Formats: sequence, structure tokens, C-alpha cells
Amino acid sequence: MLTKLSIDNATAEAVIAAASERATAMGVPQNIAVVDEAGHLVAFRRMDGAKFFSIEIAITKAFAAAGTRKATRDIGPATQPGQPGFGAQALVGGRFTTLPGGIPLEAGGAVVGAVGVSSGSTAQDQEVAEAAAAYFSSRWGAGAPVADSQKD
Amino acid sequence: MLTKLSIDNATAEAVIAAASERATAMGVPQNIAVVDEAGHLVAFRRMDGAKFFSIEIAITKAFAAAGTRKATRDIGPATQPGQPGFGAQALVGGRFTTLPGGIPLEAGGAVVGAVGVSSGSTAQDQEVAEAAAAYFSSRWGAGAPVADSQKD
Amino acid sequence: MLTKLSIDNATAEAVIAAASERATAMGVPQNIAVVDEAGHLVAFRRMDGAKFFSIEIAITKAFAAAGTRKATRDIGPATQPGQPGFGAQALVGGRFTTLPGGIPLEAGGAVVGAVGVSSGSTAQDQEVAEAAAAYFSSRWGAGAPVADSQKD
Amino acid sequence: MLTKLSIDNATAEAVIAAASERATAMGVPQNIAVVDEAGHLVAFRRMDGAKFFSIEIAITKAFAAAGTRKATRDIGPATQPGQPGFGAQALVGGRFTTLPGGIPLEAGGAVVGAVGVSSGSTAQDQEVAEAAAAYFSSRWGAGAPVADSQKD
Repeated sequence: MLTKLSIDNATAEAVIAAASERATAMGVPQNIAVVDEAGHLVAFRRMDGAKFFSIEIAITKAFAAAGTRKATRDIGPATQPGQPGFGAQALVGGRFTTLPGGIPLEAGGAVVGAVGVSSGSTAQDQEVAEAAAAYFSSRWGAGAPVADSQKD
Repeated sequence: MLTKLSIDNATAEAVIAAASERATAMGVPQNIAVVDEAGHLVAFRRMDGAKFFSIEIAITKAFAAAGTRKATRDIGPATQPGQPGFGAQALVGGRFTTLPGGIPLEAGGAVVGAVGVSSGSTAQDQEVAEAAAAYFSSRWGAGAPVADSQKD
Repeated sequence: MLTKLSIDNATAEAVIAAASERATAMGVPQNIAVVDEAGHLVAFRRMDGAKFFSIEIAITKAFAAAGTRKATRDIGPATQPGQPGFGAQALVGGRFTTLPGGIPLEAGGAVVGAVGVSSGSTAQDQEVAEAAAAYFSSRWGAGAPVADSQKD
Repeated sequence: MLTKLSIDNATAEAVIAAASERATAMGVPQNIAVVDEAGHLVAFRRMDGAKFFSIEIAITKAFAAAGTRKATRDIGPATQPGQPGFGAQALVGGRFTTLPGGIPLEAGGAVVGAVGVSSGSTAQDQEVAEAAAAYFSSRWGAGAPVADSQKD
């Protein structure tokens, strides 16, 4: 048997709260999704005013980041014209996105989930996802203490 | 022009909290989704231990309840063999569900959103959805005052 | 964080071998799929002569059994006409199957995966899936010793 | 009538074993799929640690290689901007992939199946697929004797 470490709901909602805080500071309402290590949705928030169109995109960014174990932005270059990954976006039922805004969440050396953000510009989405991932990393990442009192 | 009344994120998350409280009391972790009046997801929570399979089903129940403006359970009888609605479950890309657990949220005489619950038995899902809808109704429903102080 | 127990590839292939042995004894070639606790494919075998049409059905049976944490056959009654689950088969993109032949694999009190079998009659599919699940249970199930020497 | 030569399950699993051996030597767990001459899955293995996201991609690479009768990597150039095949990746429901890692398996002058590999970098996927195809070719390819004793 394999043992997998997976993000729980309380942690996912804390990540979403951190993302929302940044989005509010930026004045850009966002869709924010957190999936687990298997790509399944754990928590989602559409901030008031965020685009309905970007609901699925936020979820897909999180899914692709968990699935590739890479930030979606960092997959992009290998899919440009002339690169071996060209056209990858059509795979996995159109869920292989390279749009910035999806970042894996790592703890104990494993990808335990991912966050996806969408409704602003790709730069704004990326900024919010980075804030969320940094918050996660500071509390549950490799360098963080693992005392129970920190587990929410 | 039309003016649409639609559930906001803070209200949706309060509805999810009410649903979670009931689910916790029942000892059955649930997937809980709230969509707005247009059927678009506003907030989602997968309680720890809820089935991944039921994530999409919870969202679909909320979607169908907002879309039909009826509790999904109450659509069922008209889709039975011999009834004119027979086969309706295949419509809307398979999102016309009649499984209990989806209930519209009404305020000011309008359907402003819906809640969908899935991971337990259909009776358990229905009980949690009813608790969530009752909570919504007590605070924002037809009979409730609409003072700003009540808006979270 | 949550910790999840998940079937590994060697175990999945041993389950498939057990299923194949039974199918061979019955003289009915089968498609046999094993998914993990998250519904993702771990191993698959199409025995020579098994129907191509049933490849996806075998995978779907395993997916639905892992997802509902029930044997697909046992979900069926609640989806019959007049029952609350009527029409459920259209959900999850048509992957909510109640066809016999999908059985969850449990170890340590958790569903760690599922097996799905399809190409024969539903009774034949069920028989092979039961043989596979019984083999799994005898080696890795709740009652089995957990010595390393038994882990394949 | 047509007679079609098609890879059988035992051969497909031998090809997967050869691919796994190379992947293990490289230290990169892989998803490995073998399809038959009709593009239908014959055998699949997800090595422990391989990405769930790449399950479908491995199967798609094998499907596209069998379907085009070319290595997926070699289809890529004709789909670049300015080329007549531009945009082909959206065809066949998004299954026209040009990502390296899919290679047809030829015996007796015919494409009898294909192997697809995905979870590493495209270069790693390609290396494993080539190792698998070379193994197949050495045993069942054009230059190999076709005595029954060689058929596994």
C-alpha cells in the first residue's frame, strides 16, 4: 500500500482566506480553488464580483498544478511553438492549462494539493496564487515546525 | 433592464457553515455547494472524509435546484416511467438531477441561489440541505427583516 | 493534513492476475481495471478476446465503486423507478454506473481502491470482480496479517 | 474480408515490463499504456509515484501513435504555426497529441499497436517509449524470426 499526504479542508480554507486577503488588498475579486493531491476539489470561493467564466478556470488551474506538480505558469514555455510540448493544452479534456495562477502546495516533500486563482489578469491571478502558496508554505511547508498547535 | 437578486459569498459561506454543523452532528462528512441565481458556483466545501465522487454531484444538485427553482427531490416524481418528464436526467449534459439534496434559496420572493449536498445517503443529504435552507430562510428569507444589520 | 492509504501497482497487478485466473477458468475473457482510492487508474488488462466496448465500462465500474465506496451492484436498487436515486446514472459525466462488476477494495478499514470487470454478462463480470476482491481481502484486508513478507 | 494483426495482452505486458525496467533505471516512475491496432487499450501500468494527471496523457499518446502510425514526436513539426497541420491538437476530441512519448509498434510490416509513456519530462517519456518499442521490435519486429517459441 501507498500512503499519501493530502490537504484537509481547514487548511484549504485558510489558504483561500490568505488568497482573498491579497485579492482584497489589490481591489480585484477572484475565484479561488484548492484541490487535493489527487486533483479533487476541497474548497472554493467566488469573491463578490469575480467573473463566472473564471470559476472553472480557477478549478482547472489548481487541477493542472496538482497534476503536473508544477506551477501552471512554469509549464507554459515548453508548450510554445517549436517546443516539444506544443499543443498540450488540448489534453486531459482541455484541462492541461498553462495559464498563470495555479501553484502546487508542498509539505513534507510531497505535493499535497494546489491552489488556482482566476478572474483578474494573468499577472494578478499569479500574484494572488503566490501569496496563497507562500502562506501555506510558511505554515505547513518543509521549513515549518509541525507542532499540533499550528495545524489549525 | 432586469435587476437580479443574487446570493453573495459571505451568505453562501454562512449557509455552508450551517450545513457543516448539521453534518458534523450527524457524523456524516459532506460535500456542500452553493450556487447563485444563475447556477454558477459561489462557494464549496468538502468536509474531511467526504467522497470525491460526490463533489460534482453536490454542485450538480445545487445547479439543478437553482435551475428548476425546485428542490431536486420534488422534481423526481414527474420523471418516473410513464410520466411526461421521463428521461429528463439526460438533459443539460446530465446535470438535470432529481437526487434529493438540492434546495433553492429564496429571498424577497425570488430564487437567489441554491444549496446542494452529497456524500451520504439521499436521506442524509436531504436533511443537511434542509438544515442549510432553513438557516438561510430564517436569516434572509421572506419572513425575515431585511435590515442591513442582518446581512452579516 | 490528511493521510490516505492507497493501493500500489504491485498489489493492483496481483488483483488483476487473480481476476484473470477466474475469468480463464470460466472461459470468458474480460477487461479488468484497478483504480486507487481517488478513482485514478493504477493498472488495466484486456484479456485476449475481451470486447473493446467494455474497456471503458470496466474502468468506469472501478471508478464508481471507489467513488461510492460500494459495490456498483449494490447501488442499483436505490436507482430503480420510484426510488430516490432514480436517474443517478446520468451524473458524473455518465460515470455513475450501477452495473454489477465494480467492487471497492478495503484495507485497514479504508477503501484503498476498487476493481472493475466488464466484457461478459453482468453475472460473469460480478463473479470475476468478487474473486478479485476476495483475493485482495485475504491478503491485504482487515483480517489479514500485515507482515512485510505479505506486501508483495 | 480484412485480416488484422493486433498485439495480444501478453506481448503488451512484456512491452510494459520493458518500459518499466528503463523507467526504474532512470529513477522516474511512469504511466505506460499499450493500445492495439484499433487504438483500444490492451494494458496499462501506473508505476508508484507517477502523476495521476499523466494517466490519460499516456493513453492518448499511444492512441495517437497507433492512429497516425507515426511517433507522436514526429507529428509535431507539421503542426507548428505556418504549417498545414496547425491546430491539429484540437481534433479527435483533443486526442491528436504531438507530445513525445507515443510510438507505434510494427510487426510484419504492419502497425499492430502502440506504446504511450507519460509522467516525466517529454525527453524522459520519449526515452522510455523508445526502449519499449526497441524491445518489441527485437522480439516481434520485421527482422525477428516468427517462431511460436518467441511469442511468449
